[in-house]
Amino acid sequence: MSEYPLLSTIKSSHDVKRIADSDIDALCAEIREKLIEVVSVNGGHLSPNLGVVELTVAMHRVFDFPKDSVVWDVGHQSYTHKLLTGRFDSFDTLRTKGGVSGFPKKEESPYDDFNTGHSSTSISAAFGIANAKAMKGDNSHTIAVIGDGSLTGGLAFEALNNAGRFNRNFIVILNDNKMSISKNVGAIPRYLTTVRIQPWYIRVKKNTERVLSKIPLLGRLMKAFLRRSKSRIKNIVYKNTLFDCFGFTYLGPIDGHNVEEVENALETAKKSTTPALVHVVTKKGKGYRPAEDKPGEFHGIGQFDIDSGEPMSSHKGFSAEFGKTLCELADKDDKICAITAAMTSGTGLTAFAKEHKNRFFDVGIAEEHAVTFGCGLASKGYRPVFAVYSTFLQRSYDQLIHDAALGQNHLVLAIDRAGIVGSDGETHQGVFDVSMLNTIPNSVIYSPTYFEGMRKSLHTALYVQKGLAAVRYPRGGELYRPDDFAEESIDYNTYGNPNARHLLVTYGRLFSYACKAQKALAKQGMDFCLLKLCKIKPVSRDAVIFASRFDEVWFFEEGVKNGGIARNFADLISYSGFKGHYHIKAIGDEFVRQMTVSEALEQLCLDDKGMVEVILKDLSQQD
Amino acid sequence: MSEYPLLSTIKSSHDVKRIADSDIDALCAEIREKLIEVVSVNGGHLSPNLGVVELTVAMHRVFDFPKDSVVWDVGHQSYTHKLLTGRFDSFDTLRTKGGVSGFPKKEESPYDDFNTGHSSTSISAAFGIANAKAMKGDNSHTIAVIGDGSLTGGLAFEALNNAGRFNRNFIVILNDNKMSISKNVGAIPRYLTTVRIQPWYIRVKKNTERVLSKIPLLGRLMKAFLRRSKSRIKNIVYKNTLFDCFGFTYLGPIDGHNVEEVENALETAKKSTTPALVHVVTKKGKGYRPAEDKPGEFHGIGQFDIDSGEPMSSHKGFSAEFGKTLCELADKDDKICAITAAMTSGTGLTAFAKEHKNRFFDVGIAEEHAVTFGCGLASKGYRPVFAVYSTFLQRSYDQLIHDAALGQNHLVLAIDRAGIVGSDGETHQGVFDVSMLNTIPNSVIYSPTYFEGMRKSLHTALYVQKGLAAVRYPRGGELYRPDDFAEESIDYNTYGNPNARHLLVTYGRLFSYACKAQKALAKQGMDFCLLKLCKIKPVSRDAVIFASRFDEVWFFEEGVKNGGIARNFADLISYSGFKGHYHIKAIGDEFVRQMTVSEALEQLCLDDKGMVEVILKDLSQQD
Repeated sequence: MSEYPLLSTIKSSHDVKRIADSDIDALCAEIREKLIEVVSVNGGHLSPNLGVVELTVAMHRVFDFPKDSVVWDVGHQSYTHKLLTGRFDSFDTLRTKGGVSGFPKKEESPYDDFNTGHSSTSISAAFGIANAKAMKGDNSHTIAVIGDGSLTGGLAFEALNNAGRFNRNFIVILNDNKMSISKNVGAIPRYLTTVRIQPWYIRVKKNTERVLSKIPLLGRLMKAFLRRSKSRIKNIVYKNTLFDCFGFTYLGPIDGHNVEEVENALETAKKSTTPALVHVVTKKGKGYRPAEDKPGEFHGIGQFDIDSGEPMSSHKGFSAEFGKTLCELADKDDKICAITAAMTSGTGLTAFAKEHKNRFFDVGIAEEHAVTFGCGLASKGYRPVFAVYSTFLQRSYDQLIHDAALGQNHLVLAIDRAGIVGSDGETHQGVFDVSMLNTIPNSVIYSPTYFEGMRKSLHTALYVQKGLAAVRYPRGGELYRPDDFAEESIDYNTYGNPNARHLLVTYGRLFSYACKAQKALAKQGMDFCLLKLCKIKPVSRDAVIFASRFDEVWFFEEGVKNGGIARNFADLISYSGFKGHYHIKAIGDEFVRQMTVSEALEQLCLDDKGMVEVILKDLSQQD
Repeated sequence: MSEYPLLSTIKSSHDVKRIADSDIDALCAEIREKLIEVVSVNGGHLSPNLGVVELTVAMHRVFDFPKDSVVWDVGHQSYTHKLLTGRFDSFDTLRTKGGVSGFPKKEESPYDDFNTGHSSTSISAAFGIANAKAMKGDNSHTIAVIGDGSLTGGLAFEALNNAGRFNRNFIVILNDNKMSISKNVGAIPRYLTTVRIQPWYIRVKKNTERVLSKIPLLGRLMKAFLRRSKSRIKNIVYKNTLFDCFGFTYLGPIDGHNVEEVENALETAKKSTTPALVHVVTKKGKGYRPAEDKPGEFHGIGQFDIDSGEPMSSHKGFSAEFGKTLCELADKDDKICAITAAMTSGTGLTAFAKEHKNRFFDVGIAEEHAVTFGCGLASKGYRPVFAVYSTFLQRSYDQLIHDAALGQNHLVLAIDRAGIVGSDGETHQGVFDVSMLNTIPNSVIYSPTYFEGMRKSLHTALYVQKGLAAVRYPRGGELYRPDDFAEESIDYNTYGNPNARHLLVTYGRLFSYACKAQKALAKQGMDFCLLKLCKIKPVSRDAVIFASRFDEVWFFEEGVKNGGIARNFADLISYSGFKGHYHIKAIGDEFVRQMTVSEALEQLCLDDKGMVEVILKDLSQQD
């Protein structure tokens, strides 16, 4: 008999519906067991998934997926949905190369309506789907599931505003885990707390309706009158939440771990003639003690020991080193501020948040606001540093141009997870930030290889540069550093024989691989000089002159080729008299799928073996 | 005696304060006269400025600028502020090269605290300024002035959410002109209408306070108690607006054309111990009949006749042609939808909005949502076209990557005002869209020169391409087309002698200048072939092979050089065996300031004269 007697029989919403009411708790327990089992081995988003087990089961009991549609905001909480829709058997491959994705993927299943990964997109996408259905005369339901954290993103509000005019079959489920990724700061989370703690108007509403329900016909009429009335009474009883202001019928708060209660609320929402918002309160990490105690640590996690909840490995990477450096700088300089968009721990700012509380700003999942707000601080003489993952910075493109660069406001970006990120896959790869920043006039970009360069370039970005200055570094820590590599420059380093015919140029993490490639090529009798850029925009004139003298130049770049530094560099050395062959190996016009960082770099020919392979191939084609 | 006896004497907030109460109406009349006089000659944003004359005067009477700070959202309503702060004498140079900007510019005056241009940034920036002041112990006030339209942008909500935790000296003035640029669609505008029409709770509040005010000491205490109380009574009386949910003290609605009433509200806001939101109702175009009647047409306008309000010139440009084409396609295809972010008229969609009402979506000033919403429509088989100005598309970068390209949702972009836009200046130049889209995997970009190419590429984007496909075209209409230019291809055209040694490559509007340059060069005995690209990403393999044969190639590009097509093309022809000289002339690492389109193209050496100049210089340097 299967370890998962109930779960293993489920392939669809239909199968969920045939589970007896009395077995629902057992099903939820099996789901939790499977989640913990797989995530403890593969890593992944544990706490968000443990929090929505009952909610997801209730959704499958009330709705008919995939006829009804669901868009999961961010999507890292869709594991239970996957387990219930034909992916139980393959779930062990979660987040591995070619395996089940940690996010919804329509190419994976017809039950995944819309791909997600970044925050706050679900209401927009679901509203698009709902409109398409309405135009087709399709009466099925469309649901967006969004966390309280994602609700601090402006995109969610743009969508709420736009969706308020809609009529029916559109439901937003607010999964309120009182937490989001970091602890929420701002009015909305505080507002939700008020709603949770003092739901007097909900009680008023319930009591009123309960009393009215007891009066047979008249009561029903009065209830209907009350609901339709535009009177002051209605405003008091019904129109009291933020969501009502947006035109949504508010239902809640509901205990998200009580399947029956959630089902009832969803059934009510199904019947609403306006868009409905169901406010479900859940506990992140529910049912696994270590995750309940430390939901932040178990938000996204690597391998861990199931019994103790202890992570299998932990190392101090760039994030920690950045946080430490910024703290030290802030000790001596009371103008330094740190900004995060709900990523305090992930970006290494936990200590800063404690030690420099009044200069630490968690603005919510609001990367646009983070930049413009930082520009406001900068305009009055402060030195704000916005620490952000490369992939999420994409959301600030306009503000970086319009408020930082154009406004000449001195904003420093600390760009974490720059480059390939691994198992989170294509939605999270940090391969666009360089090309994006490269288009912005007067921006300065540093991409160091070691902690040393990161510390130095952060200092220079803060005290020498003006306007928009970025320091970017990869996920994880330092890689290979040759013993004879003396000191990392924030400008550029050369390494090896400057009189060699061949030059290999790169920046950031790839330099470690380039050093290994250089050794491998030397063994084959080929003498390569290395040029390691740290300031990649603008590139130092001396570095360009240095490179122009070589007969043959290869540029390896861990980012998209279009708009990248390799093409800038080609242009620069060509103007500087370079007459040789120039080769670029970067990421082509493609998205990089989920796999480990090593697997991805290997596939892209950006690790040492790949570099050697590319160089030998290019040389052989010339002969 | 001056034509403007009062206005001409004012240089600062201080001067505004010394104007007698009885002269305020006269001052406002002078301001209106000056606005109409200058905008009728120079063009500009007339209706928004006529709407805020009294509001701006009241602000200067209540606050001490520049000690107190103000951030104008979008900033096109800051003309009165400029007239009152030392720029009356130079106001005739409005929007001209080297003249007064049509937007706040800190490099122009210490009274302009923060540069704006794009929508919805003001609360974020002002909140940054307010925090900087708080950290410094500076008790002065910080004010954001934001329109109801800008409030539909998510960035404004991110900021409202974040600012709700602040304490004092922070005021948001909501300038509600019931209109925004196009007519607002969505819940917020509808919500504001409710607030305007049925402000019962405000009346309740006022009445309660008025009654209490009459009881000397006890009344004041009770009022204070009521304000601080966390009771249900307070919730009923005070906590009833959307803005209260965000932690703001709501004051309004106020008649924005009554200086005294506005002053009183602002004085109350100054004393608030929480952030305050003052809801001011104004009339766009107030005081100039043609603008009151047609506020949309007078939003941003060229030269016009003061008496009749008739524009001096009007021509059918790309926007109109696009709108017509899309309408015709939609007549035959019920899957086509049009999306605009509050720019129905500007993007040429007025007829579509009428004729295909149920497939037309104005989502508010919400470019992020527009893209993700469109992807939702596309995911269910519709063909959405998002018509948007190049500069505003910058705000959708993440959604274009994450929801359109990665999700393989077929979204068509109709990018208007691509390239140099003229007098709106650096915040509005459409010079980044190509570089931005170029970084996005699998995107396709068309940049036609003539209506013909625009129509064809729109058709191809809709029916041949998949995923993200963009058609971009400039502000205005078609330029020079040689008589012997046969038919515009959506791929590429060659024009002139294919056996010439020299090749000039370009795309979009610049081809018209290139044709003239070719003629001028021929007169000097130089034979140039032209290659006109229409599909600029990916560039056709045949076009690359064609170009590789030439001895010398120039690429002229009306966009930023970093990340642009010219550098892609260099790479492509180099791989294709090109051994000659390659020259790029594009927009460098700089912002293009306000001037006419012709002046800008001349300054950038991108018009016919500039092209000839660049080519002759490059050739002379080789000799």
